[in-house]
Amino acid sequence: MTGVYKLTFGEPESITPTKYKEISKIELSDATKFNIGSINFKKTLRGCRLEIPLEFDEEVYGFGLQLNGFNHKGSKKMMRPNADPVSNSGDSHAPVPFYCTNKYYGIYVDTARYAEFYCGYGKNKNRPAVPNNTVITNAEELYKKTGYTEKTVMVIDIPVAKGVDIYIFEGESITDVVAKYNMFSGGGCMPPLWGLGVSYRCNAKYTDNQVIKMADYFRERKMPCDIIGLEPGWQSSSYSCSYVWDNERYPNYKELIRYLRNSNFNINLWEHAFVNSISPLYQKLHDFSGTYEVWKGITTDFAGETARDIFSEYHKNKFVDEGITGFKLDECDGSDFTGGWSFPNCDEFPSGVDGEQMHSLFGILYQKTILKALGNQRTFSEVRNSGAFAAPYPFVLYSDLYDHKVFIRGLATAGFSGLLWVPELRRAKNKKDLLRRLQTVVFSPRVIINAWNTEEAPWIKLGAGDEVRELLELRMSLVPYVYSAFYRYHKHGVPPIRALVSDYSDDENTYNIDDEYMFGDSMLVAPMTVDEDKRMVYLPGDAWYDFWTDKKYERGWHEVQTDNIPVYIKKDSVIPLAEPMQYISKDTVFQITLKCYGDKGKTVLVEDDGETHATRYKEIEIDFNGFREETQRYELKRIQCCV
Amino acid sequence: MTGVYKLTFGEPESITPTKYKEISKIELSDATKFNIGSINFKKTLRGCRLEIPLEFDEEVYGFGLQLNGFNHKGSKKMMRPNADPVSNSGDSHAPVPFYCTNKYYGIYVDTARYAEFYCGYGKNKNRPAVPNNTVITNAEELYKKTGYTEKTVMVIDIPVAKGVDIYIFEGESITDVVAKYNMFSGGGCMPPLWGLGVSYRCNAKYTDNQVIKMADYFRERKMPCDIIGLEPGWQSSSYSCSYVWDNERYPNYKELIRYLRNSNFNINLWEHAFVNSISPLYQKLHDFSGTYEVWKGITTDFAGETARDIFSEYHKNKFVDEGITGFKLDECDGSDFTGGWSFPNCDEFPSGVDGEQMHSLFGILYQKTILKALGNQRTFSEVRNSGAFAAPYPFVLYSDLYDHKVFIRGLATAGFSGLLWVPELRRAKNKKDLLRRLQTVVFSPRVIINAWNTEEAPWIKLGAGDEVRELLELRMSLVPYVYSAFYRYHKHGVPPIRALVSDYSDDENTYNIDDEYMFGDSMLVAPMTVDEDKRMVYLPGDAWYDFWTDKKYERGWHEVQTDNIPVYIKKDSVIPLAEPMQYISKDTVFQITLKCYGDKGKTVLVEDDGETHATRYKEIEIDFNGFREETQRYELKRIQCCV
Repeated sequence: MTGVYKLTFGEPESITPTKYKEISKIELSDATKFNIGSINFKKTLRGCRLEIPLEFDEEVYGFGLQLNGFNHKGSKKMMRPNADPVSNSGDSHAPVPFYCTNKYYGIYVDTARYAEFYCGYGKNKNRPAVPNNTVITNAEELYKKTGYTEKTVMVIDIPVAKGVDIYIFEGESITDVVAKYNMFSGGGCMPPLWGLGVSYRCNAKYTDNQVIKMADYFRERKMPCDIIGLEPGWQSSSYSCSYVWDNERYPNYKELIRYLRNSNFNINLWEHAFVNSISPLYQKLHDFSGTYEVWKGITTDFAGETARDIFSEYHKNKFVDEGITGFKLDECDGSDFTGGWSFPNCDEFPSGVDGEQMHSLFGILYQKTILKALGNQRTFSEVRNSGAFAAPYPFVLYSDLYDHKVFIRGLATAGFSGLLWVPELRRAKNKKDLLRRLQTVVFSPRVIINAWNTEEAPWIKLGAGDEVRELLELRMSLVPYVYSAFYRYHKHGVPPIRALVSDYSDDENTYNIDDEYMFGDSMLVAPMTVDEDKRMVYLPGDAWYDFWTDKKYERGWHEVQTDNIPVYIKKDSVIPLAEPMQYISKDTVFQITLKCYGDKGKTVLVEDDGETHATRYKEIEIDFNGFREETQRYELKRIQCCV
Repeated sequence: MTGVYKLTFGEPESITPTKYKEISKIELSDATKFNIGSINFKKTLRGCRLEIPLEFDEEVYGFGLQLNGFNHKGSKKMMRPNADPVSNSGDSHAPVPFYCTNKYYGIYVDTARYAEFYCGYGKNKNRPAVPNNTVITNAEELYKKTGYTEKTVMVIDIPVAKGVDIYIFEGESITDVVAKYNMFSGGGCMPPLWGLGVSYRCNAKYTDNQVIKMADYFRERKMPCDIIGLEPGWQSSSYSCSYVWDNERYPNYKELIRYLRNSNFNINLWEHAFVNSISPLYQKLHDFSGTYEVWKGITTDFAGETARDIFSEYHKNKFVDEGITGFKLDECDGSDFTGGWSFPNCDEFPSGVDGEQMHSLFGILYQKTILKALGNQRTFSEVRNSGAFAAPYPFVLYSDLYDHKVFIRGLATAGFSGLLWVPELRRAKNKKDLLRRLQTVVFSPRVIINAWNTEEAPWIKLGAGDEVRELLELRMSLVPYVYSAFYRYHKHGVPPIRALVSDYSDDENTYNIDDEYMFGDSMLVAPMTVDEDKRMVYLPGDAWYDFWTDKKYERGWHEVQTDNIPVYIKKDSVIPLAEPMQYISKDTVFQITLKCYGDKGKTVLVEDDGETHATRYKEIEIDFNGFREETQRYELKRIQCCV
C-alpha cells in the first residue's frame, strides 16, 4: 500500500489494536516523505514518549469521535474510552490514537493504552526577553490557544509500553490520508440497503403487543420505517443481561419476530456484555471473564477467541437464526464520568489483557463477535464504544449526551478516524427542536429515533407527524445517493461524512468549522438548532446550489435564514433522488430522478443484493444524460437540470 | 502516635508525598485493630494494585476537595489534579489519596501517581440465579449505586509503582480519624488573626491609584477589610510571570505598599510558577525547570531544593521584605478540562520527578517555597492546588467553577483531607444571589471577594452595600470563635469545618448530607442558594438553637424558610461574639459578648501575637460565667443566656 509507512521504536507491547485488525497482511511503503529523523523516542518510568515536530501553522484533527473539540492544535487529548465525557479532554465513546494534519499526513500510534497527545507544546527554554504587559480578564481567553508562532512538538505519552509502532499515512488531502487509514483498517463497512432507512427504538417497557401496535402505526400512517429496535425490556434481566426473552413482556416473541419480518421490518436487540447469573451464558463464560463484577454480572473476555466463540455462537443460534438482523451494543465504553459502573483499569482477563487495554479494545472486539454471529447477513447496528481500525464494522456510535451543537460536531469529527456517528432523536423540548434535530439525523449515516424512555413516538404530543413523515421521506429519497457514498467508503476508504477541512485541507477558512460537513461527495450540510433562525455558512471550493431553491452561491461566507436545513450541492454534480418508499426489501426498485447541477458531472450507483456479504457489486455510471449501464435496481424517471 | 499504623507492600517509589511532609519523624503504632490480613496486594504491568474489603454498609469519604461528589461508595475516583473538573470523576484542584469510612478508620496511600480508587466493587463470580426483570427508563438511575448487599472491595490501582506504603488511621469518629491524619501531616495551620478578616481582590487591570481608591472606599464606608489582593496586572508580564512590578500600572508601588500598610491593610499578590523570559528568575531557574514550556515560560522544579531556594529567596527580598504578607498561587493544578495549558505528565524535571508526580506535588511544594520566603511572618494565602499532608499550610483553595451548590459541597468535603476551601464571591446575577453567596462565604475559612474581572465591587450596581457591610461585620464578630477553631486544628488536628458525618459518624441520616456542615465545634451551618426560599435542615445529636431567633430545635429534619443563612448552635455551648471592627491589628482588643446556649458549656479563646510563628499561645478558658483566665486580647462586655 503506497503512502503507508511503519516505524518501530523500542519494544512494542504484544496486545495492541493491530493484533485484532480485520485484515492483517498489508504490504507497506518502503519510503516516506516524512522526516522520520525528526522524531524523538524515549523510554520513561511511566512507559515511553514520542516527540514529533509540528509547524506553527499546522492544524491537528482526529483522535476518534470528539464531541467537544474539533481542531486540537495547542491542546491535550487523552485516549480514554468513556461514556458521556462533558469536556474537551479527549475522553470519548470512541477515542482513536490517530491524528491527521493540514500538512497531508496522518500518524497512527499502535497502542491500547490511554495515550496522551499534547498537540503542539513549546520546548524553547532560551527565549529572548520580549516585554508584554497585556492583562486578560476573561477565563476562557486565558486558557485558550497558546499562540506559538514557531515550531512546536506533538508530545505523545504512552503509559506502560516500553516501545511502540507508529504508522505514517500520506496523501493529497486529509480525506485522502484518512482513506488510506481506512483501507489499512480493512476498508469501510457496507451496510445493507435497509440499514439506510429509518430505525425506531421502542420504549424499554413495551410488551410484544405494544411493539406490534407501534409497527402497525408506521405502516398505517405510511411513515417510512425499516428497523424496529427493542430496548432492555425484551430481556428477562438487564443490568446485567440474561440474553433471554422476558416471559412477562414477550411471551410470544417468536410470533412477534414473524409478524415484524412479514411486515418488512428488521429487528434490532439492545444488550451489553455484562452477563447476569440467570443467563445461560453465565456458567459458560465464567472462566472467560474479568476479575470484577459489573452490575453484578461478569465481563466477557472478548480478547480471547473462546469467549468470542461462545458469545457469537449463542447469538447466532438464539437470535440471528430466529430472524434478528441487528444489535445495539451498549455500555461497552467506560465510566469515569458516569459513576464508575464499568470494570477497573487494573482488571485482569484470562486472555492476558488488562482492564486498560480491554477498555480500548472492548467495542471493536464486541463488534467483531456480533459480526461473526451474523455470518453472511449484513447489518447496520449500534455500538457505544469503538476504537482504532473501526471502518470495516457496520456499527454507528451514539451517546447519552444530547446537546444538538455537540451532536453536529460529532458528525464533523467522526470521519477523521473511520467512525460513524448518529445524532439520534430522542425527546425534544418543542416542535421546532424536534424538527431541527430530525433534519440533522436525516443527513447522518443512520436515521435513529430512540423512544426508549418515552411512552409514545416523540412527535405525537408535539403534533409534528406530517413534518416528520416529510423528513423521513426525504431520507428515503437519499438512500441510493448514501448507498453510493458507503460503496466508496467500502471500496476506497473515503468516509461518507467529512468535515470541510477534510476535502479542502488548503483552505484555512475551513480549519475550525465544526458545524458543516460533506454528506457524500456532492452535498454540503450546515444544520441549525432550535436556538437559530439564521446562521453563517461557509462554501469552499467553487460554486454551490441551494438544494431547496436551486439558487447558485459563490465560494465564501453566506448568511442563511431558513426553517429548513441548509444543504448545498457542489457545482457539476449529479444527484440521484428516489421516490420515497415505506421500507426497503430485497426487490425494491428505486424510481430515480437525476438532479443535475452545473454543466457536467457524473457519479456511480451501486447494484447488489443489498443484504449479504456474498453479493457482487455492480457499478452503474450515471451522468447528465442518464444511466450508462443496465440495472434492475434503479429505474430512471426524469432528469432535472439546474444551471 | 497511637492509632497510626504503617504497612509496606512491594517496593515503594522514592518520590511520594511523605518525602516532602512538614514533619518527618513520627513514632507510629505497632499494632492495629484493622484486619491487615484481609488486604491483597499485587504487582501488575501497569504498576500495582491493592484490594481492601468494605462492608456492605460502609460509606466512603475523602479523596481531597471533591466538588461534585460526597459519599464515594460504589463509584470510581481518580487522584488527578485538575482545574475546574466538571464531573464526579475524582479529578480535583486538590485530590488526596486518603479516604475514611463510617467504620472509624482512614487509609492513606502514599503515592504521587494518579491512583484510582474503585470504592466498593464486587468480585462474586458465583452468584445464584435470581430472576429480576425490572426495567429502568432513566439514565441517571441506571448509572447510580450498584446496590450491593454484601461485602465488596476497595480496589486501588497505582500506576508505575511496584509497591506502596499505606497508613491506617483509627479513631472514635471520622473527625477523630482525620485529626490523626492532620497531626501526622504536622498539625493544622494557624493563620494570623488578620487572615480571618475580609479579603478584597481588585480588578486585574487596576493601577496603583485605583487600588488606593478602592482601599479608601472600605475605610470611608466603614466596611471591614483586612487584605487587599492584586491580580495579574501588578506584574510586567503575566501568563507567564515576570514577578516584577509593572511600570505602567504600578509606577509607585513602594508608595502603594506604604499607604496600604499604614491604613492597616495586608497585601496579597497573584502569581503562578511559570516563569517568563523577561523575569530576573528566568536565567536563574533555567537549569532547574521542566522540559516543556507553559505559556512560553519555564516550569519551576519545586521538587529540588535549589529551585525552591532561588524562588523563595527572590520572593523574600522583593516582596516579603517590602511588606507583602500573602500570595495567591494560581494555576498549579492541571489542565485536562481547561485546554491543556499545563506541563505534560511525561515532563521531566532535574530533581528526578516526572510530570505526573510533579502535578501531584506541585501545589504543596509551591506552598512550602512561599512559606519559606515569608519566614517568621504568618500568612493566610490562596493556592489552586494542594494534596496530601496539606494541613500545616495556611492556604485556602479556590476554583474558577462557580455553582453555589458545588461551592457549598466543597466546604463539606475539604475537611476530610486536611484542606481548606473558600467559596469566594465574584459576580452575582442579582442582589439575592450576591447575598446568598456572601452568607456562605462568611461561614467559611476565609472571606474572599474576588473582583478580578469586574470594574467595581460586585455589590455596587446591585445596591447591596448595606447588606454586605452587615454580613462582613457578622464575620468580624466571629473572628475570635474561628480563631479558636483554628487553634484546635493547629494543636489537635481537628478541622475547623466538617461535614456532619464527620462528627456524627454513627448517624446514617448524615451519610449523604453534603450541604450542611459544622463551623467550629458548636455551629451548624446550612447555606441556601438564590434558587431557594426554604430548605430542609437535619440537626443531629441532641438539641440546637437557631442562631438568629434563639428558638430551640430537637434532633431531626426541619423545614426552614428564611432570607438569612440557617445557623444553629449546639446545646450546651458558649459562643464568644466580638464587636465588629474595620480591621485587625497587632493591638486589637476584642469586645466580647458571651452567648450561652443550654445549661452549661465551656470553650477556649486563644491569646498570642496574632502575627508570627514565634508567638506563644495562651489558652483562655471561658464558660457560662465568663473568662477563667487573665487576658489582654479580649474584654468581656456581657453574657447572654438562652435556654
